Amino acid sequence: MRAKLDNLRVVLVSVRNPLNIGAAARAMGNFGVTRLCIVNSYEVPFREAKSAVGASPILKQAEEFKSLAEAVADCTLVIGTTAGQNRELQHPLRVLAEAAPTIHRQLSFGPVALLFGSEKRGLSNEDFSYCNWLMHIPTREEHLSMNLGQAVAVCLYELARDAEAAAASVEELRAKAADVDRITTELLESLKISGYLKPRAGASTNEKIRRLVRRLNLSENDAETLLGMLRKVTWKLKQPGNDSNR
Amino acid sequence: MRAKLDNLRVVLVSVRNPLNIGAAARAMGNFGVTRLCIVNSYEVPFREAKSAVGASPILKQAEEFKSLAEAVADCTLVIGTTAGQNRELQHPLRVLAEAAPTIHRQLSFGPVALLFGSEKRGLSNEDFSYCNWLMHIPTREEHLSMNLGQAVAVCLYELARDAEAAAASVEELRAKAADVDRITTELLESLKISGYLKPRAGASTNEKIRRLVRRLNLSENDAETLLGMLRKVTWKLKQPGNDSNR
Repeated sequence: MRAKLDNLRVVLVSVRNPLNIGAAARAMGNFGVTRLCIVNSYEVPFREAKSAVGASPILKQAEEFKSLAEAVADCTLVIGTTAGQNRELQHPLRVLAEAAPTIHRQLSFGPVALLFGSEKRGLSNEDFSYCNWLMHIPTREEHLSMNLGQAVAVCLYELARDAEAAAASVEELRAKAADVDRITTELLESLKISGYLKPRAGASTNEKIRRLVRRLNLSENDAETLLGMLRKVTWKLKQPGNDSNR
Repeated sequence: MRAKLDNLRVVLVSVRNPLNIGAAARAMGNFGVTRLCIVNSYEVPFREAKSAVGASPILKQAEEFKSLAEAVADCTLVIGTTAGQNRELQHPLRVLAEAAPTIHRQLSFGPVALLFGSEKRGLSNEDFSYCNWLMHIPTREEHLSMNLGQAVAVCLYELARDAEAAAASVEELRAKAADVDRITTELLESLKISGYLKPRAGASTNEKIRRLVRRLNLSENDAETLLGMLRKVTWKLKQPGNDSNR
């Protein structure tokens, strides 16, 4: 996680359910966004939300505002999120994945606010009037509206998602060609003893088996294990009383 | 929304809270994934989950299974999700964004299962042993673990994100889980007869072997070939005169 989201602020406007506020805080914790602003005309007891596993510091530091204008006063970019249905949007509407690079650039200059509206109605037209532009997560037309906590998680995931994350992927060491060859040899041996292959199977059969073993794309550890298995099986196949087919 | 996620199956393993099942279903509805499988040893009253705005058709059609093996039997790719902490993962671990193109390619050939574990513990090592590989959402080290519904939403968002980029790259058909199971059974049998495994090897040994076979990520053709080889070897090992070590 190398994305710098210090300047990002999540602003929840008229959200009623403390569990949803907790869920938003939890997603913020997951993706490294610490500043949560709650805009509400009345108090919501969100600071102890049970849904916020690991996010209590964020909830404790959350700031409360009576008006959206106050919450975003120092921001250089204010973005409203919307499912985008049934409204005459008077703002440019951007898709999350396309908007992310613009948001990143802006984050290096100053605070950026990402607004989420109430569970039932989303952001109002008045809320939108404080936004520079609107953003939406592409969902199916038949089922546009996302759960608030899930929408926050998806937006922050996209903003935290960056090329470097790819480097964090853990892949095991692949087996060396010589070890793969040993496996092939041992496998051919056991296939011959068992009668699966004819004693003098031709070069093309050997090639087929060799290709198959390569396709397994074995890790170093798995190759060692498999070789051990095959050696034991071949050894057993060679025991007296079991050599009639050789 | 252009992603073709018809072949994607969300499998919830040992999830206890109906609200979380509902939240997963809601995210599925948002991103156009319809097939939900619930694996549980006891019944969870999830079909009326209140959190599932707009997702009741998905919950109504959800299938229940007693075992994970049954739930994924016809899948050609089985992926476990994990926060990836405190475990010695014995599987390749991929980052969501990187894994998405591979998943897309596989979806054009057959059913792919995406597994999510219980709220408290995630997927167990036994669950992992049914997976081809594991996947995680990059989160902060200080706060790795995501809420279940949010994790489902983020994964499906990423998979729906740009399905078109998943061009017509050609990959071979992967083996069905049931065939991979047959290979595992046959391999265990031959390892026991050969003396590589003790006659009454424990569950953890079986899991180790099951994981190893999954990691091979066999194509349909290679699986058939390997099964034929193993059957012949096992048959030969069982021939009279070669049962001294059983």
